[in-house]
Amino acid sequence: MKPSPSAIERRDPPNRKLVYVFAGGRADGDSSLRNLLGGKGANLAEMASLGLPVPPGFTITTDVCTEYYANGKTLPGDLKPQVEDALSAIGIAVGSTFGDVDKPLLVSVRSGARASMPGMMDTILNLGLNNATVEGLAKRSGDARFAYDSYRRFIQMYSNVVLDIDHGVFEDILENYKNLNGLSTDTEVDAEAWRVIIAQYLKAVQSEIGRPFPQDLNEQLWGAIAAVFSSWHTPRAITYRRLNSIPDSWGTAVNIQAMVFGNLGNTSATGVAFTRNPSTGARQYYGEFLINAQGEDVVAGIRTPQVLTEQAKQEIGAKRPSLEAAMPQAYKELTAVFDKLEAHYRDMQDIEFTIQDNTLWILQTRSGKRTTEAALRIAIDMASEGLITPDEAVMRVDPEALNQLLHPTIDPDAPRHVILTGLPASPGAACGEIVFSPDDAEEAASKGRTVILVRTETSPEDIHGMHAAAGILTARGGMTSHAAVVARGMGRPCIVGAGALRIDAANGTMTAGTETLRAGDIITIDGGTGQVLKGAAKMRQPEMSGAFGQIMAMTDNLRTLGIRANADTPRDAKIARDFGAEGIGLCRTEHMFFDSAKILAMREMICADSEPGRRAALARILPMQRDDFVQLFEIMGGLPVTIRLLDPPLHEFLPQAEAEIGAVSAALGITATKLRARIADLHEVNPMLGFRGCRLAIHYPEIAEMQARAILEAAVIAAKQSGTPVRPEIMIPLVAYRAEFDILRAVIVNTAKAVEAETGAKLDYQIGTMIELPRACLRAADISQGDEGAEFLSFGTNDLTQTCLGLSRDDAGPILTRYQEIGILERDPFSSIDESGVGELVSIGVSRARAVKPGIKIGICGEHGGDPKSVDFCARMDLDYVSCSPFRVPVARLAAAQAAIRAGSAKKSNAAKA
Amino acid sequence: MKPSPSAIERRDPPNRKLVYVFAGGRADGDSSLRNLLGGKGANLAEMASLGLPVPPGFTITTDVCTEYYANGKTLPGDLKPQVEDALSAIGIAVGSTFGDVDKPLLVSVRSGARASMPGMMDTILNLGLNNATVEGLAKRSGDARFAYDSYRRFIQMYSNVVLDIDHGVFEDILENYKNLNGLSTDTEVDAEAWRVIIAQYLKAVQSEIGRPFPQDLNEQLWGAIAAVFSSWHTPRAITYRRLNSIPDSWGTAVNIQAMVFGNLGNTSATGVAFTRNPSTGARQYYGEFLINAQGEDVVAGIRTPQVLTEQAKQEIGAKRPSLEAAMPQAYKELTAVFDKLEAHYRDMQDIEFTIQDNTLWILQTRSGKRTTEAALRIAIDMASEGLITPDEAVMRVDPEALNQLLHPTIDPDAPRHVILTGLPASPGAACGEIVFSPDDAEEAASKGRTVILVRTETSPEDIHGMHAAAGILTARGGMTSHAAVVARGMGRPCIVGAGALRIDAANGTMTAGTETLRAGDIITIDGGTGQVLKGAAKMRQPEMSGAFGQIMAMTDNLRTLGIRANADTPRDAKIARDFGAEGIGLCRTEHMFFDSAKILAMREMICADSEPGRRAALARILPMQRDDFVQLFEIMGGLPVTIRLLDPPLHEFLPQAEAEIGAVSAALGITATKLRARIADLHEVNPMLGFRGCRLAIHYPEIAEMQARAILEAAVIAAKQSGTPVRPEIMIPLVAYRAEFDILRAVIVNTAKAVEAETGAKLDYQIGTMIELPRACLRAADISQGDEGAEFLSFGTNDLTQTCLGLSRDDAGPILTRYQEIGILERDPFSSIDESGVGELVSIGVSRARAVKPGIKIGICGEHGGDPKSVDFCARMDLDYVSCSPFRVPVARLAAAQAAIRAGSAKKSNAAKA
Repeated sequence: MKPSPSAIERRDPPNRKLVYVFAGGRADGDSSLRNLLGGKGANLAEMASLGLPVPPGFTITTDVCTEYYANGKTLPGDLKPQVEDALSAIGIAVGSTFGDVDKPLLVSVRSGARASMPGMMDTILNLGLNNATVEGLAKRSGDARFAYDSYRRFIQMYSNVVLDIDHGVFEDILENYKNLNGLSTDTEVDAEAWRVIIAQYLKAVQSEIGRPFPQDLNEQLWGAIAAVFSSWHTPRAITYRRLNSIPDSWGTAVNIQAMVFGNLGNTSATGVAFTRNPSTGARQYYGEFLINAQGEDVVAGIRTPQVLTEQAKQEIGAKRPSLEAAMPQAYKELTAVFDKLEAHYRDMQDIEFTIQDNTLWILQTRSGKRTTEAALRIAIDMASEGLITPDEAVMRVDPEALNQLLHPTIDPDAPRHVILTGLPASPGAACGEIVFSPDDAEEAASKGRTVILVRTETSPEDIHGMHAAAGILTARGGMTSHAAVVARGMGRPCIVGAGALRIDAANGTMTAGTETLRAGDIITIDGGTGQVLKGAAKMRQPEMSGAFGQIMAMTDNLRTLGIRANADTPRDAKIARDFGAEGIGLCRTEHMFFDSAKILAMREMICADSEPGRRAALARILPMQRDDFVQLFEIMGGLPVTIRLLDPPLHEFLPQAEAEIGAVSAALGITATKLRARIADLHEVNPMLGFRGCRLAIHYPEIAEMQARAILEAAVIAAKQSGTPVRPEIMIPLVAYRAEFDILRAVIVNTAKAVEAETGAKLDYQIGTMIELPRACLRAADISQGDEGAEFLSFGTNDLTQTCLGLSRDDAGPILTRYQEIGILERDPFSSIDESGVGELVSIGVSRARAVKPGIKIGICGEHGGDPKSVDFCARMDLDYVSCSPFRVPVARLAAAQAAIRAGSAKKSNAAKA
Repeated sequence: MKPSPSAIERRDPPNRKLVYVFAGGRADGDSSLRNLLGGKGANLAEMASLGLPVPPGFTITTDVCTEYYANGKTLPGDLKPQVEDALSAIGIAVGSTFGDVDKPLLVSVRSGARASMPGMMDTILNLGLNNATVEGLAKRSGDARFAYDSYRRFIQMYSNVVLDIDHGVFEDILENYKNLNGLSTDTEVDAEAWRVIIAQYLKAVQSEIGRPFPQDLNEQLWGAIAAVFSSWHTPRAITYRRLNSIPDSWGTAVNIQAMVFGNLGNTSATGVAFTRNPSTGARQYYGEFLINAQGEDVVAGIRTPQVLTEQAKQEIGAKRPSLEAAMPQAYKELTAVFDKLEAHYRDMQDIEFTIQDNTLWILQTRSGKRTTEAALRIAIDMASEGLITPDEAVMRVDPEALNQLLHPTIDPDAPRHVILTGLPASPGAACGEIVFSPDDAEEAASKGRTVILVRTETSPEDIHGMHAAAGILTARGGMTSHAAVVARGMGRPCIVGAGALRIDAANGTMTAGTETLRAGDIITIDGGTGQVLKGAAKMRQPEMSGAFGQIMAMTDNLRTLGIRANADTPRDAKIARDFGAEGIGLCRTEHMFFDSAKILAMREMICADSEPGRRAALARILPMQRDDFVQLFEIMGGLPVTIRLLDPPLHEFLPQAEAEIGAVSAALGITATKLRARIADLHEVNPMLGFRGCRLAIHYPEIAEMQARAILEAAVIAAKQSGTPVRPEIMIPLVAYRAEFDILRAVIVNTAKAVEAETGAKLDYQIGTMIELPRACLRAADISQGDEGAEFLSFGTNDLTQTCLGLSRDDAGPILTRYQEIGILERDPFSSIDESGVGELVSIGVSRARAVKPGIKIGICGEHGGDPKSVDFCARMDLDYVSCSPFRVPVARLAAAQAAIRAGSAKKSNAAKA
């Protein structure tokens, strides 16, 4: 009888269940116990229940992991009898016994957390072998070489993982033996030779750790269990969790399973398969296998594997046979399993299998990682196949991953200087400087340089460099190698298995045929074709089409939240509209001032001694700024455009380097001394909290007057030229007091009256404010109250985060890194809104503003507007819109639809509820 | 019938009352209508009701002022008939008629706001004179010279105030006439001569403004009324209101009153009196008068006046007779009025009077400004006289003014190099550089220099310089002159009427007898004795005694709020205890690091490459810091001491000037390059929002460990040495997340366990946090929750103001000045807590923390802790204590008692309720 979850929670020692067995078509657990059994354990139990050929085994729960760490890395006493019982059950299922010298039971010991963390934690295979049982295995299998090879693999792996002995110790012994005996490959090592090598291995262990390699199988077993639990806290696992926002508290389960062997000769094989193509999403079986190999050989990318299907073989022009051809019966059984699993889990599965002596075993299944392109296609296909509902299809796509689609691709019409080709492991194109180490990648990226990480192969230790790189290129490995899986997960363009690539990292060069490139040289990689190009290729901006367009169309039907873009230039506005933005939520006018004509007038304005001087300079800026707005309004074709008045501290417009002072002062017609004095005058200790935002226009109302005039005159012109009414939203930044708003509102209203009188046009505009200070949130009712109060509010959550947390975005880097490392923060609050702090201020602001002005339009225009988790928050706050950078508009559209589905508030559900 | 207030508010034109008459022992208004009639108008009405000899008149309400500004400086149409009626009523009361050539009614036109603004607004006297009525006045008074003199004074005053003609125009004519006719003083100018001069004045007016001086008396009257309303908005009035926190919206009333003349020869006089001594508070009539003069002559300080009483005459050794001797009957009537008014108003009165031909007229009464010493004495005396209750006595003292008592005085035993003596106009001693202009005073003060403003006399235009100066010295004027009144109000030590002083401002020198001093030379002024000393005299710290001590003792019985001090050094701690602090609410440990021994070790710590390097440096700091704490604990003798862990950005400890780098790097034994690199490393864009507060110890827990050890070891030592238990409160700064608190709490708790193990002592300490970020206020429940949560909270309202308002204290100066000028802010939010923003965050924090931990100790340790208005806020928040700078402790004690009285929550009321 399964214990109820409450019994598990009670932790009453005599009754509590720490071990869940799956064997002989029955299982204690199922996939609903994912939190307790980990993803792998839950799926193994589920598969066993489904009657699939799963090697019998059992799972030690994640609760044991939690207890292990809580009790100073010791395992609970009541675990032992449960493990012993479970081992017996496995033995009965496979007809062998743990430690039996005639019929020894061999097991694998693997990690398995709630979320997949590929390659991050430790695994031990072939456990159960010692000097006695190896002989029994040899006899029973009739293959002494297999038995000794398994034993030496076990010694190597166990010594490394449990005893912390370097791999190199064993590799040196093996290399030395081969050299002495004139052998060049491992396959030439015969049974007797392995025995000799094993003896040397055991001696080496004794000398490394001062005691013999454990021959006691129980010692082996408990050492392995503890080692797997311990591997939850390796630095690489911690880094992976931080990058993937996985809490440390989840812990891992341990799965112990009877070994099956893909390396029992040519009737055996091991492989990895997907039920659909994880790169394109096409409905075709997809995978790789190796004959006479253990599973790790495939994933490690050391041997290049064969493909599953004849179709795939033909498509890539492979020489060696497919599984379909080589083992037709096993292939047939395997595809039947594929269909059963996909129908059961209603998602594409990623399956590990082994064929032992023509018998198929399924080792693992899980929802397969996929490219975003594939995710979209699979979601759309499964919805049309009726396997999932349309709402589910929308929920299946990770909004964050859409970025992957939004990367540029190489212009197909541009000339290509291809120097190398590999496997197209993760789509999108990237262009950057060559770096040969993850550390170099990270350092260069931190300086704002764009790099391509070039490696022979990648390992979990390389993750930080892969994250920092714009793209990844490896010489070895297949489509399911570490580099490929990780790059797809990160959305980085990636090419793997570029066999012609030779890397000399020590000298900082790479060679591809006749081309030799150095670190720092520019290459372009095309993750869609596998081509590596010399130099910077011409790129093409992404387009929305196919499955992407279908999903986007579905999101627009579902979401209740409007999506606008932060766009300062006509170019940004164009991209934003192409990506489906429904307006501009933030146009930062200051970005318009940095071209050479405008900045000179701006500097004159700043350095003027009097209002007339400032007005003269502003008069020169007016027509330029008006032209910018005309273009913006025309591109947006009547969609709302929110324009923020000048916001940054004025010193940002003045030269900072002494070298520039001379030229700038000459251009301004003032002395260098005067310019220096003005710069000193504007210097601030904390410019973020200084003379900026509406404070500028409170001091110099003529700036607001010029900007209001430029906006409103542009509205008149654009409306006349286009025939479409233009309704600008003028936004006053950094308001803390209603009186600030009132003063600047009066300036704008008076300007509007003047423009109306001059042009004869009737202006339709709104005046609102950016809510970006805690005080503004608290005073939102006051700021909004009445007809002359703010007509719209836009939360500037970047600045609100800085003030609420007392943390300068410019200075937060090292602080936030440390805080995430030691677990104070799960996420960067500048990326994903701090719901319990900043979020509460937003909530206070929204409710107070709506209490006095129920229909007031409220949006958000911080970077958070493009973060899916924050978009969900904004939807829960019932905001009218989010505004984000143009490239994140599709992300926000999808996130908004998912938020609506989650809240059950989808506008007009596409879903025929299952 | 008086209209009800609601009728006034209704503003129904036909019924509304804009003019309030007082004449013949009856009055439309009374002192309860202060807001409508202004202080002067309400008191005139009240005095008239009391049957006092008030010249008949009427008041135009402050509502008319509001309407005047609302309607573009035009007066309401319905005012005219009411003014005409009121003028008739005055005429009837005095037996003359406005414009009657035989019996002309002359009136004064004066401002009068809700709060006193001495000398800030305009006044016109003798209105009603023209070329015709002056003859009537001459005939009726029998004194042609008096009539022409009055007329020429009127022309001068009216031309200046209403027609905006410079004084100099008339002064030049008069000087010229006297020179041509060999006259040296005005008294030598006879009636005929004044006629000639008047003709020249009238001609000058015509040429200045292009039209004649108005002979139409109604034009005169309405011009004067409008001018008085207009003077509400002169720059000097606006400045005064800003300094005194008087809202612009109050407006002024206009009082029009029959003229009485103190300048009708030797049976006439004019004077200013106080019912008690406004300098000491002694129960003695106090005042000054001038025979044959108009009121302005006394206040302007041009002639040095005579004293009221014989006693005062003897005390100051005056030569000229007292009023008591010169006009015994008028004196007797006057003192009867004093007694009646003081009994009626239950406060010391400041009274203006005129004696016209031996008849006493009371022109004005109001609560008199007084020194703080006097305020204390009067409050205590009146309470013991039974005139007011003890609670009222406590309410009578302005806490802010206590500063005046807390200034140092000159050590009586020190040698004094007295170079000059004047009138002791405002107590306390001050020492500083001589400056001769208010602008120089302001500029020097802004650079942190201490200055004494030395002027011939002061005027309202000088206020900004008086505010900036540490003390004020004038050559002319009496105890009620502008300089004296303003300096007392500001709490600045002041000496006036130092007749031997000669100032040559143009050459930047002053001469006192044989001594000539230059601008920048140091002098000391003793506002208690009137002595001016050359150089810096030895000062003595203030002591609490007499009335001060009595009031303070009363406050301690009343208040519920604890008062602590912010003290970083043993010296501060000593002062704080002497002033009655009940503990230290904030000890900023970083201030201990700046002496040369500690700063070197601190710099080594900062520049160390590794934790061992930091620990080595910290080990050298430990004993020094421990010694500081031992002293602090011993001084505080068992009172609570809150010690904050290191808070400021580390760069503050490193040299900033390139010149210092060499020496410092040599002292540290590192290269200049390395030191520069570390400085660059620690540079931040917004240090206020950067690597500081608990973030330091999160990165370098060894700092918190050392500080916790120093505090706890010191507690053991001090307890052992003194026999009094020491209970330190360790405060973690800048917490935003509970996890930050937990991590540092663990460091402190572990250190405490180690110290207990090493010393065998049982430690009693608390760990709390400073709440100084909006997020911390919002998360106060989370931060306080549970036994391992914060045990106390202290609101750091300085930083909370910076983050809530997004305003850097270091950069706020020009912004706040502007904001106060244009009325966005009434008060500097760094001086007086922003209740509706920052205050709400405090309120949220308090209620959330108490919801989860009802008994949690909560205080405030920002500068606001010493601001009376903010103390009142803290009392309303029901905080446990406020902590302020040592010198403000008495201010806080009094403010806390007043808050308790106001709230009706006084601990144990001294009051026998009236």
